[in-house]
Amino acid sequence: MTRQTRIRSAETGARIRAAALRLFARDGYAAVSMRQIAGEVGLQVGALYNHVADKQSLLVVLMREHMEALLAALDAEALPEAPDAALEGFVRFHIRYHAARPDEVFIAYMELRNLGPENFAGIEALRRRYEDRLEGMLARGAEAGIFSVRDARVATMAVIAMLTGVTTWFRPEGRLSLDEVEAIYVEMARKAVGAR
Amino acid sequence: MTRQTRIRSAETGARIRAAALRLFARDGYAAVSMRQIAGEVGLQVGALYNHVADKQSLLVVLMREHMEALLAALDAEALPEAPDAALEGFVRFHIRYHAARPDEVFIAYMELRNLGPENFAGIEALRRRYEDRLEGMLARGAEAGIFSVRDARVATMAVIAMLTGVTTWFRPEGRLSLDEVEAIYVEMARKAVGAR
Repeated sequence: MTRQTRIRSAETGARIRAAALRLFARDGYAAVSMRQIAGEVGLQVGALYNHVADKQSLLVVLMREHMEALLAALDAEALPEAPDAALEGFVRFHIRYHAARPDEVFIAYMELRNLGPENFAGIEALRRRYEDRLEGMLARGAEAGIFSVRDARVATMAVIAMLTGVTTWFRPEGRLSLDEVEAIYVEMARKAVGAR
Repeated sequence: MTRQTRIRSAETGARIRAAALRLFARDGYAAVSMRQIAGEVGLQVGALYNHVADKQSLLVVLMREHMEALLAALDAEALPEAPDAALEGFVRFHIRYHAARPDEVFIAYMELRNLGPENFAGIEALRRRYEDRLEGMLARGAEAGIFSVRDARVATMAVIAMLTGVTTWFRPEGRLSLDEVEAIYVEMARKAVGAR
């Protein structure tokens, strides 16, 4: 492969993933055919298989990319050590990141049922790594007497569900700006974990 | 129609809805055909159309039944007037009701995208009625100085998302019983809305 061909191939791969993401989010994974995905990017279905093994690997790649980008973006936030400030940073980050990616969120949560057992385990491990970041903050805060949580694991699941829920109702043209929504959720999350 | 025929027809209708629910939850609405649903209940696809107009009306009926049963079950709880006790009752009810119906929850939230505009508006109105019950408690509690919420509407969405999230991770054979999970969420929801 020449350098040019490699670049073109990488571009095609990215276009395939973008098309699959759009179609999976709109119609659901099970309803979308490889032929449809090929059609979206202007390829013959045979040529599509030069870039991707099958529909399942396309789904896994989309989910893995989403989780890895999420983890990397959280790292890039470089949240403060203090549990209190870290929690505020996490809440704002999670809402902002997910509100901007409704298709990815929808697929990442809703198409888990369509993953084979091994792929499921891989994605779950990445999700667990993300959840562990928040759980660590809550546990550290509880230890320091700053938070009061009866069960850091359950509190983590509760806070994340609360925050992800924003993607189902938030509209940029709505009554509240994303910044106002973030502020309300920071306050609620702080109170929910008994922040002093 | 004789009485016998009417009863048999009603039973078939219920079996069709149960099969559709199972298949939609497993494969997603878009991937399921009327032929498949007919096969599940041992009918010819032509006979299926004696009971249901099309796939869309099957989806709407499932969602409407779910929301109406949910509202009726909440009414049957006859929650106390006091906002504090009402919130605790609501939290326990919501978790218990939804944890027992993962398929219905999955469809009710995930297949909204597959409703036509009019059907969507109808289901949204029912959902709104349910949300308004919690919002009313929070607003009354805030007025009485028992709760402290900056925005009763947003707090409602946050609490409901938090509670519904339980369906995604709770397993009866897991570390915590449903009763223990309920107790933790009651405490977190109370704190989140600043209950004194």
